[in-house]
Amino acid sequence: MPDNHQLRSELADLAEDAPRHALNLDKVGVKHILYPITVEERGGGWQSTVARVNMYVDLPMNFRGTHMSRFISILNRHRGKISNQNLQEIVSETRKRFFAARAHLELRFPYFIEKTAPVSGETSLMEYRAAFLAMGDDDGLDLELQIAVPVMSLCPCSKEISDRGAHNQRSVIRLRVRSPELIWIEELIELAERSASSPLYALLKREDEKYITEQAFDNPRFVEDIVRAVATELDADKRVQSYHVECENFESIHNHNAYASLNSDLHH
Amino acid sequence: MPDNHQLRSELADLAEDAPRHALNLDKVGVKHILYPITVEERGGGWQSTVARVNMYVDLPMNFRGTHMSRFISILNRHRGKISNQNLQEIVSETRKRFFAARAHLELRFPYFIEKTAPVSGETSLMEYRAAFLAMGDDDGLDLELQIAVPVMSLCPCSKEISDRGAHNQRSVIRLRVRSPELIWIEELIELAERSASSPLYALLKREDEKYITEQAFDNPRFVEDIVRAVATELDADKRVQSYHVECENFESIHNHNAYASLNSDLHH
Amino acid sequence: MPDNHQLRSELADLAEDAPRHALNLDKVGVKHILYPITVEERGGGWQSTVARVNMYVDLPMNFRGTHMSRFISILNRHRGKISNQNLQEIVSETRKRFFAARAHLELRFPYFIEKTAPVSGETSLMEYRAAFLAMGDDDGLDLELQIAVPVMSLCPCSKEISDRGAHNQRSVIRLRVRSPELIWIEELIELAERSASSPLYALLKREDEKYITEQAFDNPRFVEDIVRAVATELDADKRVQSYHVECENFESIHNHNAYASLNSDLHH
Amino acid sequence: MPDNHQLRSELADLAEDAPRHALNLDKVGVKHILYPITVEERGGGWQSTVARVNMYVDLPMNFRGTHMSRFISILNRHRGKISNQNLQEIVSETRKRFFAARAHLELRFPYFIEKTAPVSGETSLMEYRAAFLAMGDDDGLDLELQIAVPVMSLCPCSKEISDRGAHNQRSVIRLRVRSPELIWIEELIELAERSASSPLYALLKREDEKYITEQAFDNPRFVEDIVRAVATELDADKRVQSYHVECENFESIHNHNAYASLNSDLHH
Repeated sequence: MPDNHQLRSELADLAEDAPRHALNLDKVGVKHILYPITVEERGGGWQSTVARVNMYVDLPMNFRGTHMSRFISILNRHRGKISNQNLQEIVSETRKRFFAARAHLELRFPYFIEKTAPVSGETSLMEYRAAFLAMGDDDGLDLELQIAVPVMSLCPCSKEISDRGAHNQRSVIRLRVRSPELIWIEELIELAERSASSPLYALLKREDEKYITEQAFDNPRFVEDIVRAVATELDADKRVQSYHVECENFESIHNHNAYASLNSDLHH
Repeated sequence: MPDNHQLRSELADLAEDAPRHALNLDKVGVKHILYPITVEERGGGWQSTVARVNMYVDLPMNFRGTHMSRFISILNRHRGKISNQNLQEIVSETRKRFFAARAHLELRFPYFIEKTAPVSGETSLMEYRAAFLAMGDDDGLDLELQIAVPVMSLCPCSKEISDRGAHNQRSVIRLRVRSPELIWIEELIELAERSASSPLYALLKREDEKYITEQAFDNPRFVEDIVRAVATELDADKRVQSYHVECENFESIHNHNAYASLNSDLHH
Repeated sequence: MPDNHQLRSELADLAEDAPRHALNLDKVGVKHILYPITVEERGGGWQSTVARVNMYVDLPMNFRGTHMSRFISILNRHRGKISNQNLQEIVSETRKRFFAARAHLELRFPYFIEKTAPVSGETSLMEYRAAFLAMGDDDGLDLELQIAVPVMSLCPCSKEISDRGAHNQRSVIRLRVRSPELIWIEELIELAERSASSPLYALLKREDEKYITEQAFDNPRFVEDIVRAVATELDADKRVQSYHVECENFESIHNHNAYASLNSDLHH
Repeated sequence: MPDNHQLRSELADLAEDAPRHALNLDKVGVKHILYPITVEERGGGWQSTVARVNMYVDLPMNFRGTHMSRFISILNRHRGKISNQNLQEIVSETRKRFFAARAHLELRFPYFIEKTAPVSGETSLMEYRAAFLAMGDDDGLDLELQIAVPVMSLCPCSKEISDRGAHNQRSVIRLRVRSPELIWIEELIELAERSASSPLYALLKREDEKYITEQAFDNPRFVEDIVRAVATELDADKRVQSYHVECENFESIHNHNAYASLNSDLHH
């Protein structure tokens, strides 16, 4: 057992000492590790990407420090596939190796989806920012799925009051959903995209650009409308325990952003 | 009254419409405005700096949107001195002008302190990142003061096991403190600095560098030690209602960071 | 003289040693200092802001190191007003104190301008990112003024091919201009703003939003058009020795950006 | 031919128009695309990672705009393996499809290397930031390889003047090397790491931490020393046409950074 060996080694282990101030710490661990992972896709495949990883445990008042290198060695043992399923396994192993009441695993990564342009049918990859935020304790695994979806928003007020045109812009919808059941990243992306004036694409031919310009013009949305549209669908989804949704518009007429958010914990 | 005039103008005001989805929104507003402010110093002076500003109100389910330009006009009216005192005033005015149950004002800014080098007595300005996070509702003002303090940490384990030297690094202590009473930014900075292996300075002569190198060597601290030292003092401060403290070490031997945190709400 | 005292002190001064590898270094110095400055406005006033400061000198092959603390002490002596004029003074003093052939001073800071909304006449502050990039040697001072101006761009192609609407977005025009003569920050901002589909404002009433929406629709611009419009005016400005101009559109229909640039050194 | 089809389509193609201002543009294209790539490793394998991609061409004065979507379709066609070899192919294809004199391809990506801890022999992945910066014209391919290597630096002055300890910190060495021949990312990383006080590792057991602490203490390096050590080796490498090397120390005693750089074009 490497850990026992380590603890018994002649090199002093100050982490085992009692701390000067007897206080429990919520989170002790390692932050901002970049690590290649693979993520399961809805279609059944696996996608290679690179994650920012944070790993923490709680630390009771009778221990001065934790053994930071163990986090990395746990991560290394699971090098390979990461999915909703083995998040649980990694978190459990972390709790065990640290004798911890709680363990946290956070993975933030770009996620790619092949999208088809609406008219030309041209395909291209679109980037989304996703995260798995997992916490394990005696009650099991608490898992949150997070996603940032860039979309297009067109201002209803600008359209209404102007004789021609309407200001529009890139926006980002950020969703965090807690669920004991499997929810695919793709599901949340689709939900966000149908709540905006238009989805974005990496590759658009001119006929697609015409289509999207007109679609957005016909479908104006305030930042408030977008958040409510997403929240209404999440409220109706039986798998969802709680959620936080926000939208930020990078206003094309201002240098600041318009913002709206809704936290289901405050309302339901 | 410009607002009434605005509401009555011939330009359609869609924000007054009922939304399609009847949901209350927690926060609706403007984000990421850069704005010059002045902040009151403990010594009695006022300091010019530049803040990132966010302003939000809640939005009840019967209104489709809010009038984003009003936030900016409130901000413009208070151009000039910002202090613990008139945060309350700005938040109250925001609630009133928006007929809102809750209003949020967030100001994040660099804050400068003139520090004296420990041996040479040379003075220089040190930068800290501060924030006022204010929320007003019928119960009054909820104010959090936030500060990020860069410090030096020297690893107790590395010192103990090595025949010479000890790895050390820049760390940042981040503190968020809720209090109904006045707490000066300077107080939180001093608390953080005395909890680390050594404070930082912008200007050090060689005699100061010698002093600080030895001081840090004589005062090794784990990231966990630092968080507990800060928390122990905050626990003893009668003005503090609740707090969150974290420390992140930009480890000189790794490319990732060591981290510890304590949230008083979870423990007391 | 503190420096002589320092050099003669009993604390060893390794920086004076010959280096192991006899190579001249282009730049040696301090980076990423945050510092409050005041900047002269075209109107005659002075504006308080906060700058990121970099200071460098060249280091000949016969010196192992430089005395980093001297940069900070030079900066401290000039605490107060910074203008096109005393940049020269700071750079000269730096060369002298370091016995350097070249000295560099870089100041990057947010700069604010009070703008008037086009219809309502409401005033508000707009933020721009500016920089002074100064280098001094025996030939005198080489000064570049840099500015980032957020603007609105409306796509000519989208307008042309669509039956209604046109995609538009926030863009940023970045200008770097070398001149031995005084050019005001305000001049470059105005040049950039008149080259785009519309300028941005912090505060717009509905009548202004209508005006700007229609103005941008009537004034569609590719990213290439914007760069050429700026460059054409700079070509005609006798004070300008050389320039670099680029524009980046945060496309509202894509998650990537459209980009164009022109470097006068490559063309003239 | 899709392009011809596109050009002839009934949707207006304003990009083909003559511009109002007859100026050549250096770079026109797409920026900040996130894209999964695979990179060839020295050992012969291929590594999956995610790149930020920029693609540009020059645009002569007789064309108003370029066809941005073609960049994405070129990128999509090469989805799969990216290596020193097919950079050339992609750049050539870009020139051809755009009838361009010059084409630029920039790929910035995290790159991982399995490192072995110096005493325990434990292996772990270390992250580095790499880039391929390619430009093609009639003279062939101009390729620069760029790499950012985090290392540990220990201050010689602090060690010399202090009775115990020495301040040390994380530093980053950034290298940009132009060569017509193949240089592996791994070669540049090793060069940077042996030029510092110590390399970094993701996973260190206590015996390794002792080793590295002492190694760094025995091997103190100024920021100037590190840059000169790297430059001296690059000067001796026949494959290297030109280079830029810089080092930035995140000083553990300051909140600003120490910096040195050397550009071979200015000296040789």
